[in-house]
Amino acid sequence: MRNDMVLIGFLQAQNCSNYVGSWRHPATMGDYMTPDYYQRIARTLEAGKFHLAFFDDRLAMPDILGNDHRSAVENGVRVVKMDPTTILMMMGAATSRLGLGSTYSTTYYEPFHVARVFATMDHMLAGRVAWNVVTSLNTSEAHNFSQSEHPDHDLRYDKADEFLEVVLGHWDSWADDAIIGDRASGRFADPAKVSMLKHEGRWFRSKGPFTVPRTPQGRPVVIQAGQSGRGQTFAARWSELVFAVYPRLDIAQANYKAFKEVIAKAGRDPNSVRVAPAVYVIAGETRSMAEDKMALIDKLAKPVDGLALLSEALNFDFASKGMDDTFSDDELKSISGLRAIIDRVVKVTGKKNPTIRDFVDGSKRGTIHEFPIFHGSGRDVAEQMAAWYEAEGSDGFVVAATHLPGSYEDMTRLVVPELQKLGVYRKDYQGATLRENLGLARAEPYDWKR
Amino acid sequence: MRNDMVLIGFLQAQNCSNYVGSWRHPATMGDYMTPDYYQRIARTLEAGKFHLAFFDDRLAMPDILGNDHRSAVENGVRVVKMDPTTILMMMGAATSRLGLGSTYSTTYYEPFHVARVFATMDHMLAGRVAWNVVTSLNTSEAHNFSQSEHPDHDLRYDKADEFLEVVLGHWDSWADDAIIGDRASGRFADPAKVSMLKHEGRWFRSKGPFTVPRTPQGRPVVIQAGQSGRGQTFAARWSELVFAVYPRLDIAQANYKAFKEVIAKAGRDPNSVRVAPAVYVIAGETRSMAEDKMALIDKLAKPVDGLALLSEALNFDFASKGMDDTFSDDELKSISGLRAIIDRVVKVTGKKNPTIRDFVDGSKRGTIHEFPIFHGSGRDVAEQMAAWYEAEGSDGFVVAATHLPGSYEDMTRLVVPELQKLGVYRKDYQGATLRENLGLARAEPYDWKR
Repeated sequence: MRNDMVLIGFLQAQNCSNYVGSWRHPATMGDYMTPDYYQRIARTLEAGKFHLAFFDDRLAMPDILGNDHRSAVENGVRVVKMDPTTILMMMGAATSRLGLGSTYSTTYYEPFHVARVFATMDHMLAGRVAWNVVTSLNTSEAHNFSQSEHPDHDLRYDKADEFLEVVLGHWDSWADDAIIGDRASGRFADPAKVSMLKHEGRWFRSKGPFTVPRTPQGRPVVIQAGQSGRGQTFAARWSELVFAVYPRLDIAQANYKAFKEVIAKAGRDPNSVRVAPAVYVIAGETRSMAEDKMALIDKLAKPVDGLALLSEALNFDFASKGMDDTFSDDELKSISGLRAIIDRVVKVTGKKNPTIRDFVDGSKRGTIHEFPIFHGSGRDVAEQMAAWYEAEGSDGFVVAATHLPGSYEDMTRLVVPELQKLGVYRKDYQGATLRENLGLARAEPYDWKR
Repeated sequence: MRNDMVLIGFLQAQNCSNYVGSWRHPATMGDYMTPDYYQRIARTLEAGKFHLAFFDDRLAMPDILGNDHRSAVENGVRVVKMDPTTILMMMGAATSRLGLGSTYSTTYYEPFHVARVFATMDHMLAGRVAWNVVTSLNTSEAHNFSQSEHPDHDLRYDKADEFLEVVLGHWDSWADDAIIGDRASGRFADPAKVSMLKHEGRWFRSKGPFTVPRTPQGRPVVIQAGQSGRGQTFAARWSELVFAVYPRLDIAQANYKAFKEVIAKAGRDPNSVRVAPAVYVIAGETRSMAEDKMALIDKLAKPVDGLALLSEALNFDFASKGMDDTFSDDELKSISGLRAIIDRVVKVTGKKNPTIRDFVDGSKRGTIHEFPIFHGSGRDVAEQMAAWYEAEGSDGFVVAATHLPGSYEDMTRLVVPELQKLGVYRKDYQGATLRENLGLARAEPYDWKR
């Protein structure tokens, strides 16, 4: 029996969790622009032996719906978005074992910068850091970063491939034993063990030598969420941890199996990549208390939440059509955002050309039904999680919050002890670094000939 | 009599202080890739009531000398350069009043990113943050960031002007009272109080709305170090704190006075901009102990340190000429790096066309003689500092370290109590934010019509 379920907290550096309605919850803390808020969450996740706290990110406010930011501002639809790496450092200062991951974009940043930030983080947090690679979503982000338009989906991934070559190349440019540090002789490091990358590619040039020595875990862990065709190829090549959205167990089993095969085809050990789908957890002291919680939470969503977030994620104005107008083939093809949402809606509704309403109902974006909901007593939730895990629907879960810090307090106090009793989840951290705690070896320099 | 001397710690996120020889000092700590090292320094500076700890930065290793990085690596000439904002957060977590500043480049980053990182920092560190604006130095940095060459000096400043318009524009785009946060009505913020910047400039476009509300001190403090003609115009327009290099008191008095006049001409109150020159401090329990310390420290420099750093700062290979070859007018004109060094060497040597040796001897780069050295007993040092301050050679000092954390421990234990006795330096922090502690008002939204 497997006993290494992975648990990850799905965080947002903003005024709400993944669930926009969370900020309207009576028990959500309102100090989301202070370190206290994030440090409290971090300590709670560490008390629950979570592997990782991870920040999502976008580089613009949701303003595609009706080409206007005002309804998002009025309703608090993810309008505050702070820099996630900055906040992660405050969480790192309050913990000692919890892994800490952040999204950073390959479309709007330079690889030297991303390599340097995450390598520095991994030194400062003693090997607990992960980078979630995203190619970003929409034109609003392009317009904040001096670009006219957001590049096409597949082009973004081609560029991301090269971006990763630069970042991993830099991360490996100091040998583990390069530094001598002999004060008396004045020999600081062995020049034969510090190499220049000299990358000259199609989109990026970066010469090096990199200015940060190899990090405590070799290099930060690479996370990816690509589930569409091109995104999956990318994830199979680079990722060590994969975030997925699987609406039901049977779909999870099929997709999990298919993805592990893609990894094997890419020449990697499928067990070296952990797959974790996003879920909501609503746990109560009793089953009926959990159902009451869920009813309250479910009512906090507003229609504008879903429409604004669908417009943001798909880079398409959902106010530009009537609710029952269909998307043409050309329109669907031209959508440059999160293609996994389209795949899902087509699959769930069974329609090749869904309407706006089909997108709302099929994706459930903006509601807690966007992800599977595990609910009930702590024991109930633990059993539901164990069922997915044991049926090979996943290697663990990315737990999104319905309200903060309540969701994670419930996980740690009510669910984690039950997972431990079921024998599927560890009782303590196994090691010091994130790689050790994920059961991964310290990273060897990347094999470019592979 | 003035009693508000400003003290700033001049830090590097690397294997040595400003003084390369510092890493060869027997009492320098070797854990510069851990948070302990930086947190120890931060606590020491806060114990000494320092206004600010500030990180310098470069985006490349010194590799222009002989077009080779190997001698810099071998000798430890500033070859480790971690991301400074990341480290600053760890220092912030260990302190509560110390101001925390970092250099970030206007040439190799995008303004939306810089605005978001520093605004997030200012929230997470409760209004203690400063941004040191630099336009970067050399081609090695360009080559790490997908660029073919480093832009010319004056062009960089033109671009930086526009960069600041974007950053300050974003920082001011949420009104102080924009957030409502009413859970019951679901009104998150007042859309009339969150504006889009819609910046469409020559070099940058950034639409907004910005995703970080106004920060605790209104916006981060802006630091600048430009001393050359174009750099000074830039500093007079934007800076609230200015770092200078003044080799002697008489030069300091003349330059300080001239710069304050430039500020007045730019339509700003000269007292609203604090000017602090870089200095080394070598204090001992007795005068003779200080002299012994200085002799030991002075011997730690190697000739390669100065040549590598001059090549880096001037973007010119100092191994491409003999030591006594002169620079032609065209060569001097073409140098795109730190023009203040050229101005200084011409002034100190009295030669319009200095040689390589004149640059080494005139700039003293790589030695502790690059900046004025205040030395002796704690009382001696305090008196030397007070003399500059009272003679209007400066508003305070940027204290560089000869070794770490020793330099700052000596400042805090031996010098600061004497400065306090002399009545030129405060006994405690006056407020919570950096602006309050610098005697500046909370920042009002920038007046673009000014």
